[in-house]
Amino acid sequence: MLGPQEAIVIIASPETNADLFWATRFWAPDPIIFVQTGQDKIVLVNPLEFSRAKKEILGARVLSEWNYYKRGNDLLKNEESVTYITIVLHGILEELGVKTLNVQYEHFPYSHGKDLEKLGYTINPVASFLYERSIKTPQEISYIEEISRYTDEAISQAVEILKQAKINSAGFLALDETIVTSELLKQIVTAHLWKYNCLGAHTIISSGIDSYEPHNEGHGPIKAHTPIVMDVFPRSLTNGYFTDTTRTFCKGKANKKLSRMFRAVLDAQQAAIDILKPGLPAKETNVIAVAKLEEAGFQNKMLQGGPQGFIHGLGHGVGVEIHEKPSLNGSTQDILEKNNIVTVEPGLYYPRVGGVRIEDTLVITENGYRSLTNSPKERLEIA
Amino acid sequence: MLGPQEAIVIIASPETNADLFWATRFWAPDPIIFVQTGQDKIVLVNPLEFSRAKKEILGARVLSEWNYYKRGNDLLKNEESVTYITIVLHGILEELGVKTLNVQYEHFPYSHGKDLEKLGYTINPVASFLYERSIKTPQEISYIEEISRYTDEAISQAVEILKQAKINSAGFLALDETIVTSELLKQIVTAHLWKYNCLGAHTIISSGIDSYEPHNEGHGPIKAHTPIVMDVFPRSLTNGYFTDTTRTFCKGKANKKLSRMFRAVLDAQQAAIDILKPGLPAKETNVIAVAKLEEAGFQNKMLQGGPQGFIHGLGHGVGVEIHEKPSLNGSTQDILEKNNIVTVEPGLYYPRVGGVRIEDTLVITENGYRSLTNSPKERLEIA
Repeated sequence: MLGPQEAIVIIASPETNADLFWATRFWAPDPIIFVQTGQDKIVLVNPLEFSRAKKEILGARVLSEWNYYKRGNDLLKNEESVTYITIVLHGILEELGVKTLNVQYEHFPYSHGKDLEKLGYTINPVASFLYERSIKTPQEISYIEEISRYTDEAISQAVEILKQAKINSAGFLALDETIVTSELLKQIVTAHLWKYNCLGAHTIISSGIDSYEPHNEGHGPIKAHTPIVMDVFPRSLTNGYFTDTTRTFCKGKANKKLSRMFRAVLDAQQAAIDILKPGLPAKETNVIAVAKLEEAGFQNKMLQGGPQGFIHGLGHGVGVEIHEKPSLNGSTQDILEKNNIVTVEPGLYYPRVGGVRIEDTLVITENGYRSLTNSPKERLEIA
Repeated sequence: MLGPQEAIVIIASPETNADLFWATRFWAPDPIIFVQTGQDKIVLVNPLEFSRAKKEILGARVLSEWNYYKRGNDLLKNEESVTYITIVLHGILEELGVKTLNVQYEHFPYSHGKDLEKLGYTINPVASFLYERSIKTPQEISYIEEISRYTDEAISQAVEILKQAKINSAGFLALDETIVTSELLKQIVTAHLWKYNCLGAHTIISSGIDSYEPHNEGHGPIKAHTPIVMDVFPRSLTNGYFTDTTRTFCKGKANKKLSRMFRAVLDAQQAAIDILKPGLPAKETNVIAVAKLEEAGFQNKMLQGGPQGFIHGLGHGVGVEIHEKPSLNGSTQDILEKNNIVTVEPGLYYPRVGGVRIEDTLVITENGYRSLTNSPKERLEIA
């Protein structure tokens, strides 16, 4: 795929750049340089990281930035005013005979691009990068399956609290004298995950009208007779992989609208899951989910005063990034492939009721799919 | 500072871009757009985040991406082939009369820069951005002081285990039959931090020659009579602030070289801390630390077979990013200012001995400094 004078180049910290983490499996807070040609993968690091990178990075040659900084400087003879990073890159690219850099469309820095152009290189921003990331290996599937199991366990601990809680006279949930809050439930969920070195950052446990906003993390007392949305998407800090699970419950009786929303979302999710298989245009999953929601009387569109109904995409790939390829939404061109790992997460949101969302993480198999999420999802109400 | 046709522009997720998080205090996984002119601060978000952003973002106007996408498209009349984000930006920049964009040197994407140039804008990459970030408010100081206290507590829990442990016949630490490992101590430290919603990602507790590598997180049994380096740099997921603390211990007797290294590092740290005050060129702290280490017989240079001695910079600013301005190293041009928060962390590293590092986080005050770290640091050996 890469021509003889072409290379993929990434300059970033692997902690904030998923492609780079995926390519190196190296946790480092400061920027490193990654160069991939048709024949070779190279990582350049500073002397502080050199011996660690040598041991931890497999499948790529680890070289010292300083050596290539010297080489780059010799080549330039201080004629051009460019930055340290650009000089290092010039040192290595010249050795490799590279003239064209394929860079991450959304991330490659403008300043480095301009500097490299000054030195005669061509910069080619590429939208979908390291495409193989979306096809998971058995090892990657087992990582995501493992963290999905911890997530199931963590959610069941929060559900246990909802079961034990009583509804007090203010309409809040209480355990004896303790009010059950979003914060308490999030602490229970994330503390369980943390036992396995899994980080549940920004876990959502929202109730009442907070749940109308899909990314509202939830605050204060959990309210009875309203949706309680738990969206748990931890990352293993051991291997770097995520999973993504959402469940919706209601403590006590749910009103008619909420019950209808729940049923519609559950049915829409199942309909979309049922058609998952290799070769399927991913947008078909969105089409069928929308059709099911409409069939149940829920229009998928913007209403007055803000978005209402099914206001986000149906799902997304999951891996070393929480949102990655393939996309499952109305406008995607992605085609599902064997060993993609994707979420299916329809939802309905109304400002006076709140939100309902149900989400599983699934792997696409030879003939269909296999769910990595096993938390019970069929019952809205908790007595 | 910003001219009439100039703006600061950031396009990123606030979760991976510290300037943007600092400017908005908004946790969001997907990219948002930030525009600051001389008069105005504006954040553009997608409809999914709109109502939450309206409530959570203070001190900036929150606008809908979609409205400006429509406006941008009307202006362009589909004549130019540019991306969604660029069209949104064109919509808002045209309204504001902006012609020049000051962008983050290390982060602003090349592809967006090129698209904006096509539309007639000037892109100006700026190295030091949102400079005010390095001068902390009383609120920011209290956030960092609070997390520093949790960090002191967490370290004292790990030290307690070291005290209780016995040295077994293999030279490892044990509590009854349980071998004390790096993993166990990291779990104790990070679980304590997590109680306060503070994330101790990549906490380092290394022993033996692992500690030669400053970023080696540590694995396996803790070894007696060797350096045990604990480097704890948690982030509050409530307010986004970090702190940074390192301590070095040795269970049982330390050999002579290790004892000398420890004493030299402790003295070098104190000497550098003693001169902290507003107006000081930050590199002076590095000069005095190096002088103290050399006085004690430890040369600060690369030796054969890899870097040895004092192989990293003396310290760095701390805030919503773990490494931020000002820099305290041999080449920095930064000048200390009142209400900077900085670390001072000299270290010595030898491949056959391991490493010693001692680090405090301190705030620069009117006349000097105040330490936010209170963990005891004066004794190397734990009986």
